[in-house]
Amino acid sequence: MAVDAGLLRELGSVLGPGLLSTPEACVAYECDALTAHRHPPDLVALPTSVEQVQQIVRACHRHSVPVVARGSGTGLSGGALPVAGGLLLVLSRLDEILEVDPRRGLARVQPGVTNLAVSEAAAPYGMYYAPDPSSQVACSVGGNVAENSGGVHCLKYGLTVHNVLAVKLVTMEGELLALGSETGETPGLNLLAAVIGSEGLLGVVVEVTVRLLPIPRRVELLLAAFDDVGRCAEAVGQVIAAGIIPAGLEMMDAPAIKAAEAFARCGYPLDAQALLLCEVDGLPADVDDEIGRARALLEAAGATSVRVARDAGERHRMWSGRKSAFPAVGRLAPDYYCMDGTIPRRHLADVLAQIAALSAIYRLDVANVFHAGDGNLHPLILFDAGKDGELERAERFGAAILEACVAAGGTVTGEHGVGVEKLGPMCSQFGSAELETFHALKLAFDPAGLLNPGKAVPTLARCADYGALRVHGGQLPHSHLPRF
Amino acid sequence: MAVDAGLLRELGSVLGPGLLSTPEACVAYECDALTAHRHPPDLVALPTSVEQVQQIVRACHRHSVPVVARGSGTGLSGGALPVAGGLLLVLSRLDEILEVDPRRGLARVQPGVTNLAVSEAAAPYGMYYAPDPSSQVACSVGGNVAENSGGVHCLKYGLTVHNVLAVKLVTMEGELLALGSETGETPGLNLLAAVIGSEGLLGVVVEVTVRLLPIPRRVELLLAAFDDVGRCAEAVGQVIAAGIIPAGLEMMDAPAIKAAEAFARCGYPLDAQALLLCEVDGLPADVDDEIGRARALLEAAGATSVRVARDAGERHRMWSGRKSAFPAVGRLAPDYYCMDGTIPRRHLADVLAQIAALSAIYRLDVANVFHAGDGNLHPLILFDAGKDGELERAERFGAAILEACVAAGGTVTGEHGVGVEKLGPMCSQFGSAELETFHALKLAFDPAGLLNPGKAVPTLARCADYGALRVHGGQLPHSHLPRF
Repeated sequence: MAVDAGLLRELGSVLGPGLLSTPEACVAYECDALTAHRHPPDLVALPTSVEQVQQIVRACHRHSVPVVARGSGTGLSGGALPVAGGLLLVLSRLDEILEVDPRRGLARVQPGVTNLAVSEAAAPYGMYYAPDPSSQVACSVGGNVAENSGGVHCLKYGLTVHNVLAVKLVTMEGELLALGSETGETPGLNLLAAVIGSEGLLGVVVEVTVRLLPIPRRVELLLAAFDDVGRCAEAVGQVIAAGIIPAGLEMMDAPAIKAAEAFARCGYPLDAQALLLCEVDGLPADVDDEIGRARALLEAAGATSVRVARDAGERHRMWSGRKSAFPAVGRLAPDYYCMDGTIPRRHLADVLAQIAALSAIYRLDVANVFHAGDGNLHPLILFDAGKDGELERAERFGAAILEACVAAGGTVTGEHGVGVEKLGPMCSQFGSAELETFHALKLAFDPAGLLNPGKAVPTLARCADYGALRVHGGQLPHSHLPRF
Repeated sequence: MAVDAGLLRELGSVLGPGLLSTPEACVAYECDALTAHRHPPDLVALPTSVEQVQQIVRACHRHSVPVVARGSGTGLSGGALPVAGGLLLVLSRLDEILEVDPRRGLARVQPGVTNLAVSEAAAPYGMYYAPDPSSQVACSVGGNVAENSGGVHCLKYGLTVHNVLAVKLVTMEGELLALGSETGETPGLNLLAAVIGSEGLLGVVVEVTVRLLPIPRRVELLLAAFDDVGRCAEAVGQVIAAGIIPAGLEMMDAPAIKAAEAFARCGYPLDAQALLLCEVDGLPADVDDEIGRARALLEAAGATSVRVARDAGERHRMWSGRKSAFPAVGRLAPDYYCMDGTIPRRHLADVLAQIAALSAIYRLDVANVFHAGDGNLHPLILFDAGKDGELERAERFGAAILEACVAAGGTVTGEHGVGVEKLGPMCSQFGSAELETFHALKLAFDPAGLLNPGKAVPTLARCADYGALRVHGGQLPHSHLPRF
């Protein structure tokens, strides 16, 4: 679609070569990591300063042009999918680490800095940034804020919202807001928490102050194999109930184990039906004590084998299988669709059984990888987009899994966000009163509705289409059973 | 002022004897624990059900009558101060514990349940609710949500916002919203965090789901005395830097020590200039290890004596002095004014020195009690309201302390909220862009502006009166030096 010539001139004078407007240059930004949804942007802006960001949004605001912010494009729910007639605001060149202060235990960074780069900059001081999404080599801190990202260690160390002290946010009108504080308090209304996980709907994050933690003095990793998925799921609850808070507690089922072993040669037991990785970190004496107790507990819970990594090398190898599970599973089929839902831990076994039943109904295989400790599931649905109807079937299968999560008392997203992917399931999660309040909050920050429109929060009209009942007060509809 | 007869009739038919409208009955509710501010309410509603709350706010909404929600009235910033022409909505009769489920690790309670009652109900299952304000015998869970309350253990276990999984909220239009989830995720926008600490501006909390934790298997308390306040403050940072996360890390200065000892006979060293209480909890082996390391560290940091409580009895006695510090200090002067600000831990010593200087300037004594571990100060300013101008001088002294907190990179409230007390200091903390966004969020929930008007967030006009400069991006004005 045609871009207004006045806007183009204005942005060109701000950005110079940092403005892309030809189809050839823009097509590289047509999707994020949810590649099933693509839309080439009409305009791509690559600002290098906060002032440029302010000038860009002010110009877009005057011309009523929507703005979609994008970090590294590793998001899995389509949050950075361009919108028709809009500008894609790519923040990857705002990539400066402004400050690392071990004494105050914080780092102040621009949004385009990668997650891993923060920990690397803190490492000389014996510190690190705790949230560690699997994409941490590439994903940006700004994107982490937008999605409230987690990682394998968020059971103990929390999500992004628990590790960010302050942000600077540019509103759609170009105002610069400073939210949060170095001490972690948020006097007045907690706008900081409202912004974290808001998927680009409220403003453009241009600076993030994160909490740094001391690197744990000892880390031990234990691998337990089970010949029954349900038994493994039960063991997860028992570890937590015993008062052990592992740094990570990850579970994989047989298809995921086999794929990971074939991919990473990580030494996983190929005859296991389920596998648990339990990492404990902290002071040496505590870690030894907790690993000992966890081992005894898992053996009593019916593990067929329990092994503690001998050294850092074996530990990294054992993790490598889990961390490469997505690409590994990707070799099992031409395409895979990664889901992200949460459930109360006690329902792990039931919901896994339901997923197995759905797999038969939708005639698509599934491999399960999850942050078991915090009940965050990542079923990977295998399909072939080249086969007629398989993508749609995979999407319906995914939606049915999320319905199962909601019915079990969980939620439709753990750490990947809603984006464009989960607008339908959001209609099952929330009633119209809650959805109206989401929209009201959105409009409080962005009255013109220009920031990332159509993402994260479904309209009531869309929910009516989705066919979900109007629900109130957390009562859940069960109207949304699989359709074929 | 006259109450509309139609509204009175309507509310009377909903509430029966649960509606108070005579001056004699209403006067009991004229203030909360910030007794320097009083205003008798015109109407007091004491609902016993969620439906009644909805009917009350709908009626008030139709008649454009402001609504101020109140829990137990223990708040220290005047958040529950009645407003002229408004209705005071007292939630103390919504006091049912709806559910305690140790397996899911949660309790679901009505807002009028006291903080301590939650832990008492969970105790038979070996669990408890972590946030523990000093007023926990009396303060309500609904009030805790409104103020995002902390307590002596929030260093390790977090504030209310970290321990609440979900709330049900009645909007000013009478809609019932379900926010948050049992699993702790908040898909879409994080309205739950926005509501926690919102001081009754966004809605009326009518149900709270809190996380329960296992009661720690061992608890040890260490008392360290110092002959220098600065040295004690330094030691606080060293404990944290060593990777020890005490359950509580509390500091008191000489006036507070003397007052507490005289009041509670808790065995505090009367010759000390500062005292540190360091509690560690968890698994027995870990606790022994950490207490040993903390002791060695405090001795090396210059403590004149370090003592570990021999048993639970001595531990409770040692805590009793700290927990009764407010009433104890209250005996030193006819009146005291309890402040609540936060600072980065490394500035503890400086800010204490500044408070001492201000004490001389304002010619009022001060005793200092603080959650040192998280940099949350509670200076208690001693004065005599019967003496001409002393109350005003105490308030100016208090405001100057908060300015010092902001200048040191801290905030104007740690856990007591803004209420009516800190509207002025909020003008120093935030610029007009942030304040406008607070107001926009408020109006998103409450477009008519009827919920607790005039609290928590100052108007821009008020800030202009306060004389603070317009500030942006966290730059702080230093324009607000003491006036006499």
